[in-house]
Amino acid sequence: MNNKQELRTVWWEDDHVCLIDQRLLPNEEVIVYCQTLTMVAQAIKTMQVRGAPAIGCTAAYGMALVAYQSTANDSDQLMQQLAEAQTTLNAQRPTAVNLAWATRRMMSLAEQIQAQGVAPMREQLLNEAHTILAEDLAMCHAIGAHGAPLIPKRGAVLTHCNAGGLATAGYGTALAPMRTAHAQNRPIHVFVDETRPFLQGARLTAWELHQAEIPLTLITDNMAGYLMRRGDIDCVIVGADRIVANGDVANKIGTYSVAVLAKAHNLPFYVAAPSSTIDLALAHGDLIPIEERSVEEVTHIGTYRIAPEGVQAAHPAFDVTPHELITAIITEQGVIYEPFGAGLQQHAQRLMTPIN
Amino acid sequence: MNNKQELRTVWWEDDHVCLIDQRLLPNEEVIVYCQTLTMVAQAIKTMQVRGAPAIGCTAAYGMALVAYQSTANDSDQLMQQLAEAQTTLNAQRPTAVNLAWATRRMMSLAEQIQAQGVAPMREQLLNEAHTILAEDLAMCHAIGAHGAPLIPKRGAVLTHCNAGGLATAGYGTALAPMRTAHAQNRPIHVFVDETRPFLQGARLTAWELHQAEIPLTLITDNMAGYLMRRGDIDCVIVGADRIVANGDVANKIGTYSVAVLAKAHNLPFYVAAPSSTIDLALAHGDLIPIEERSVEEVTHIGTYRIAPEGVQAAHPAFDVTPHELITAIITEQGVIYEPFGAGLQQHAQRLMTPIN
Repeated sequence: MNNKQELRTVWWEDDHVCLIDQRLLPNEEVIVYCQTLTMVAQAIKTMQVRGAPAIGCTAAYGMALVAYQSTANDSDQLMQQLAEAQTTLNAQRPTAVNLAWATRRMMSLAEQIQAQGVAPMREQLLNEAHTILAEDLAMCHAIGAHGAPLIPKRGAVLTHCNAGGLATAGYGTALAPMRTAHAQNRPIHVFVDETRPFLQGARLTAWELHQAEIPLTLITDNMAGYLMRRGDIDCVIVGADRIVANGDVANKIGTYSVAVLAKAHNLPFYVAAPSSTIDLALAHGDLIPIEERSVEEVTHIGTYRIAPEGVQAAHPAFDVTPHELITAIITEQGVIYEPFGAGLQQHAQRLMTPIN
Repeated sequence: MNNKQELRTVWWEDDHVCLIDQRLLPNEEVIVYCQTLTMVAQAIKTMQVRGAPAIGCTAAYGMALVAYQSTANDSDQLMQQLAEAQTTLNAQRPTAVNLAWATRRMMSLAEQIQAQGVAPMREQLLNEAHTILAEDLAMCHAIGAHGAPLIPKRGAVLTHCNAGGLATAGYGTALAPMRTAHAQNRPIHVFVDETRPFLQGARLTAWELHQAEIPLTLITDNMAGYLMRRGDIDCVIVGADRIVANGDVANKIGTYSVAVLAKAHNLPFYVAAPSSTIDLALAHGDLIPIEERSVEEVTHIGTYRIAPEGVQAAHPAFDVTPHELITAIITEQGVIYEPFGAGLQQHAQRLMTPIN
């Protein structure tokens, strides 16, 4: 990583696409130097990089890498190579919206400047990837700026899963308000749900907060209620995978339980996410399909079996938190309160570079 | 184990104390044959056997084993050997109430019949251990009989931790109503919280329900809210480590969160426990000390590290569920409803062989 205080998930260095191998965290901190498109594609496919914004940035750099390394004689040939790269990259994680969005944006630029020839295309495509990364970081910092004032004075925040710098180009979405408050020298203590079954909290959020020297306490998911009742938590901030028209939010399994607990203890429950996460096509959360993932992630931890052979398990990967349980939604454009409909429409419309 | 359908945690066989090594479940099913007092003491200390009632039965058999193997010339010498065994056994788990209760009960009998001589003492002490085990099983079956009618018709029950046969001589406390309903050929489907950090649900409850051929679905603790909101759960039944005078209940960490979720979804929340668990000395749950256990059980799963080095974690082993969230308390004497005070007093007074 290029700087201990300024986490970067993906970056361009020495003519290569570099990224932190998130599969090995927290036990090993390994940087992957992708020297070919194939390596970039593999990194996306094997989840060395994860999180929609981070995948988008990686894919943009993958396109830039193809242009940078191209020995094409003319721009037609380069366009052909870019189109093939786009197809290759998009195929790695078919459902990742930001991936297709980033490669399309790179292709659009290439088409616009094709007349300028190969050399300018190379340069401008790399610049465009830098821009996509910079926009992502700016988005995260804006969420931090809007969200930090919402954190109560004592600064005890509970979070779930990893909507952190590792899921973006850096800095994060749900973790951004905590980073910003910490940078402002305000007291911050983050209670981190370990987030079974995949343990993104224990593995990733704990790692990046520890790196950033933000005080934290790791807890199992079932301790949140106990800590709230003791008065140890001041507010909850989580990310979102999708925010629909009425303000219902799909996020990692367990988010809904935390929201119910927050309500029962009169604690503010905030969702922090880029406005690209808003999906006005769905009227309410019951319309969001919930992905069922491998039950082996429940019966095993890593390769370690914890349940008897032959036992049935469930693994809904996400749940839906109804808007009644949400105090406010924080995007890079500002803070949206109930009724959420109007604010979400505004933020979705003002989004300059729509991802969908 | 002596019978697939009739789980026994500890039993007497071929002149030895036998028990299931619960540390190895669910991956290995190993029976420990304790041929000496030292082996019985080790089994208690190293948690090959766990759960207060199961420990009590094991300790009683440990005393019986000493008498059975004794080559004492007279009853004074045997009394001396028994007193030493009592000291040894009690020292293995100092806070386990049932352990000291069981060894005291064996000593009391020995004192009463000392005049009869060594041979009758041997025989009657072994019989007394059998009686303690039989009483424990009868207690569990009575909880099952009282609790089964409370399970709604569809039979979808959520449970947390392991208040099962493995924690008792067999059959269990919280699991007893499910076993009884299943034996009555009623539909039963148990949703089993894995119960981080120690995974008693995934390792033990899933194992014993699977053995008993009771349908189950293993879930991570953070899925309970999602399933309740979907309408998949009909009621919750959990065990108790302590029930105080006003009906507040201390139980495994995470129980309180489940109770809040049950309330939010209008689901009955039952506590099933022997009346020996009632502690009228404490007026309410805030007076119950909460044991903080090793944080390594949170940062590791088994020997597998899941969190970064140097990260702080919390590990309250229990939490307190206030009586307002409890629909009813089931003991071997019957079902107690709000206001709990009077019923708890009756059950505590009617307890024939007080543990405290």
